Amino acid sequence: MNTAIDFYFDFSSPYGYFASLHIEKLAMQYDRQVNWHAILLGPVFKTTNTVPLAMAPLKGDYSMHDMQRTARFHNMLFSVPDAFPISSQHAARAVLWTQQQAPAKTASLIHTLYSAYFTENIDISSAEQVVRIGADLGLDRTALAAALGSEPLKEQLKAEVTAAMARGVFGSPYVIVDGEAFWGFDRFDQLEAFLKNGKI
Amino acid sequence: MNTAIDFYFDFSSPYGYFASLHIEKLAMQYDRQVNWHAILLGPVFKTTNTVPLAMAPLKGDYSMHDMQRTARFHNMLFSVPDAFPISSQHAARAVLWTQQQAPAKTASLIHTLYSAYFTENIDISSAEQVVRIGADLGLDRTALAAALGSEPLKEQLKAEVTAAMARGVFGSPYVIVDGEAFWGFDRFDQLEAFLKNGKI
Repeated sequence: MNTAIDFYFDFSSPYGYFASLHIEKLAMQYDRQVNWHAILLGPVFKTTNTVPLAMAPLKGDYSMHDMQRTARFHNMLFSVPDAFPISSQHAARAVLWTQQQAPAKTASLIHTLYSAYFTENIDISSAEQVVRIGADLGLDRTALAAALGSEPLKEQLKAEVTAAMARGVFGSPYVIVDGEAFWGFDRFDQLEAFLKNGKI
Repeated sequence: MNTAIDFYFDFSSPYGYFASLHIEKLAMQYDRQVNWHAILLGPVFKTTNTVPLAMAPLKGDYSMHDMQRTARFHNMLFSVPDAFPISSQHAARAVLWTQQQAPAKTASLIHTLYSAYFTENIDISSAEQVVRIGADLGLDRTALAAALGSEPLKEQLKAEVTAAMARGVFGSPYVIVDGEAFWGFDRFDQLEAFLKNGKI
């Protein structure tokens, strides 16, 4: 069995969303599993002294245009949400919780959250929306709601982010497979070549 | 006649170098000219509060790996120079001067400077090296050497950088054609689609 593909993403990241639409197909094609890592770029950006792309001088306007153009170019449903960027800790915690409580639903939860935010303009920074979406997928509403604000889950997410940074993760999407790292949806061509040939 | 493609680049930028190897072919294919704009990212990065990629925490190591992998992926000659990144003002000024004094040699000068730096490990931050390379191409050695340190040329380059920022340029390579902007060598697929279809 080939080793899994580690896929790091922030729910507030359009390019993470784009990549999430493609990573499973790519993994399946090359007989890999996807390990999903919902992380928070906030603490990462503090370390790298970066601001969110959309808020950077000059880069901000360009990036708003670029994300919409990139969606059209690859035929992906996408609209810039009214609330953008957002804090994605509730969504990320919900993923962590699901990975422990109902792992088979992890991918569905991720796709549904991303799609709610980037195609339906639903503000998934809200714990209520995250719980509603989880419950619609059959997750235990009460248990999920309680977990989202709980200290252990908060700490666990912090540890995830710290572990990600320790592996060199500094953006979204960020993919690591067999020790090779790929930052950005625009490296998926190189990722595919690596999966195909085992080197690049 | 179609309008020209404005191609902005910094001589210290590997991705600018990669793009410089492809832009003319793309332009020719879609019946366009290339307007070369040698700029300095230093003043731009001050405005955008950015550090050079290679020097950024976490991003730095990744980017050193990524540039070499990208060169291999696209079959381009490349090695990371011993002196990297560098101040590229002499090289940029030489381009400006050549555009005025011997415009037909502009593209050759750019390719030769880039290739000296990224394939022969020649430190083109040195005015002497820039003059030598220019003279090898038949530029007037004495006039070029005198011009590189002259106030008018310095001011002209500053004005070029200011004008670039006023157009929204914040990185290298940065391409503008018919009002559409493309940042990065990894947007050349979208640039080509735009040139082909007139929209994207």
